[in-house]
Amino acid sequence: MAKLAVDIHGGDFGPFVVIPSCLDFFRSNPQHFGYLFGNAQSYRAYVSESPANVEWIDTDELSDIERATPSKLLRKSGTSSIEIAYKALSNKDVDAIVSAEHTGVLLALSTKYGQLHSQLNRPVLASWLPTTSSETVMLDLGASFSATSDQLVAYAAVGIGLMRSRYSTPKVSLLNLGTEAFKGPLELRTAYQVLSQWEGIEFQGFIEANDLYCGRTHIVATDGFTGNTAIKSAEGALKLTLSSVSDQFTASIWHKLLGLVLKYRLKSVVSQLHPDNANGALVAGSDLIVIKSHGNARRRALTAALNRAVDAIESQSAERIWEELDKVR
Amino acid sequence: MAKLAVDIHGGDFGPFVVIPSCLDFFRSNPQHFGYLFGNAQSYRAYVSESPANVEWIDTDELSDIERATPSKLLRKSGTSSIEIAYKALSNKDVDAIVSAEHTGVLLALSTKYGQLHSQLNRPVLASWLPTTSSETVMLDLGASFSATSDQLVAYAAVGIGLMRSRYSTPKVSLLNLGTEAFKGPLELRTAYQVLSQWEGIEFQGFIEANDLYCGRTHIVATDGFTGNTAIKSAEGALKLTLSSVSDQFTASIWHKLLGLVLKYRLKSVVSQLHPDNANGALVAGSDLIVIKSHGNARRRALTAALNRAVDAIESQSAERIWEELDKVR
Repeated sequence: MAKLAVDIHGGDFGPFVVIPSCLDFFRSNPQHFGYLFGNAQSYRAYVSESPANVEWIDTDELSDIERATPSKLLRKSGTSSIEIAYKALSNKDVDAIVSAEHTGVLLALSTKYGQLHSQLNRPVLASWLPTTSSETVMLDLGASFSATSDQLVAYAAVGIGLMRSRYSTPKVSLLNLGTEAFKGPLELRTAYQVLSQWEGIEFQGFIEANDLYCGRTHIVATDGFTGNTAIKSAEGALKLTLSSVSDQFTASIWHKLLGLVLKYRLKSVVSQLHPDNANGALVAGSDLIVIKSHGNARRRALTAALNRAVDAIESQSAERIWEELDKVR
Repeated sequence: MAKLAVDIHGGDFGPFVVIPSCLDFFRSNPQHFGYLFGNAQSYRAYVSESPANVEWIDTDELSDIERATPSKLLRKSGTSSIEIAYKALSNKDVDAIVSAEHTGVLLALSTKYGQLHSQLNRPVLASWLPTTSSETVMLDLGASFSATSDQLVAYAAVGIGLMRSRYSTPKVSLLNLGTEAFKGPLELRTAYQVLSQWEGIEFQGFIEANDLYCGRTHIVATDGFTGNTAIKSAEGALKLTLSSVSDQFTASIWHKLLGLVLKYRLKSVVSQLHPDNANGALVAGSDLIVIKSHGNARRRALTAALNRAVDAIESQSAERIWEELDKVR
């Protein structure tokens, strides 16, 4: 049984996507409880059709000014949906938050309401990659523009903690330009040396970005700038391919029919690789469990984020990550 | 009429892919001349069937030791196929080199035999992105792990020179985590200010990696580490999608037939987006024209690289790049 706080605001599509996706999820999962934080007055029709395991908490909405300058959130106590949800999480009234709010807002509030591990100077954003097999998590996807060797090792430790419940000796890699140990900048080569001595993992050394999506590794550590670039570049390429495929089959009825058959056949390929299925990044490294959904997440993606939250709670990911970070000397 | 030097060694598939691709190319393009540098003795059967516009220059092959430590190439005069080709290029016996040799080797030899523009401390690797429309070149894809704002501006200038023959006001972007002017590290924000004052271009500001493949911009400037990560990540995602699509259609004869139809319909999509078609990076910023082919380039990719070389010669890209670099203060 998991108690999930959901911030109905934030994200490109907002409450009209978030709320129905949530109500469906909690209807299908009566063992879990949903706490919907947001401006309930404006969505009364949804409130009245909510199932018994959903509770509404009427709050303000985060303003665009607060959203643009998240550092200000650290200084005063706010009454927005996301901040009230963090207060509930901090009081252990709920087990996790799911929100499509801006990364900067979530990083600031996790710092404000959570206890950050001493090895980190800000929370780390861990995101699942779309792969055809296995599970691969990449981090940091957050606000780090570059990373020292110590930070790269700490990111790897967060990833190890996250994957430890599933794999007894998780496979760990560092993203680099080439696979040879002498390649790349000094900080990567130093982190390589540290991780090659780490016990209880299978250290795979350096991985190149073209090997990220084949499920070769469980954990990829990199700085936020590089990680964001890698994942966005793959998303751009995949989305363009998928839309190009669709465009090919609209010319005539015969093509449309063919397109339908092919769409069916392609479905399993697409669903494995579609970024939506990998939605739900973990704001990690504090004692709180917060799942960030894509800003442009649609229904399928939001369901993936809710499932990710349940999984993080059940696998005690925050504690496990803390344990691994304790091993960093 | 272009005189192209081709290094038959280097690359994962080596002479057995390079030579037949070259012979086909020069048979189909009798207006151009090909000079094949390499161990001709070992490939006599190919020598005897070469068309009249192909000449062989019998040389040694670059050793694996030389390949692994390209800095050593700077100190002594070598007799390898790629180095003899550079000597011919430096003497203006040929107009350009096409080679699948390691990037490090080509950067070292372009420095040794060419004159580097004073705004650069090493040659820049400019690579074409697979897009559905327009043309997009990204740089640096070379050995720069990070870039100062001055370097980013110089990379943009190289790209502008490269695209100027095709577009009178080329569209220029800087790769960043977000599109807002206040986002990202300081060096990017400084380069943004400089480029926003640059005359004769359409400066588009920051671009995110998910927008690289829609042909929105002509030039994307970034450091080598980020650029390599972006392009490799997209290649990995695309290759996986294409192979997954193929895998879906091998189960039965009906599926195989369907697969054939799909393959035909997908052909135009795939050929637009396939990394092979964007093969042929330019080693830019010196007075020499050198095209680097992928290490794992197959026939179609090598043809793309040869066409790229012809295009670079005909558009006088080295001179045009030099002119734009002169504008950097």
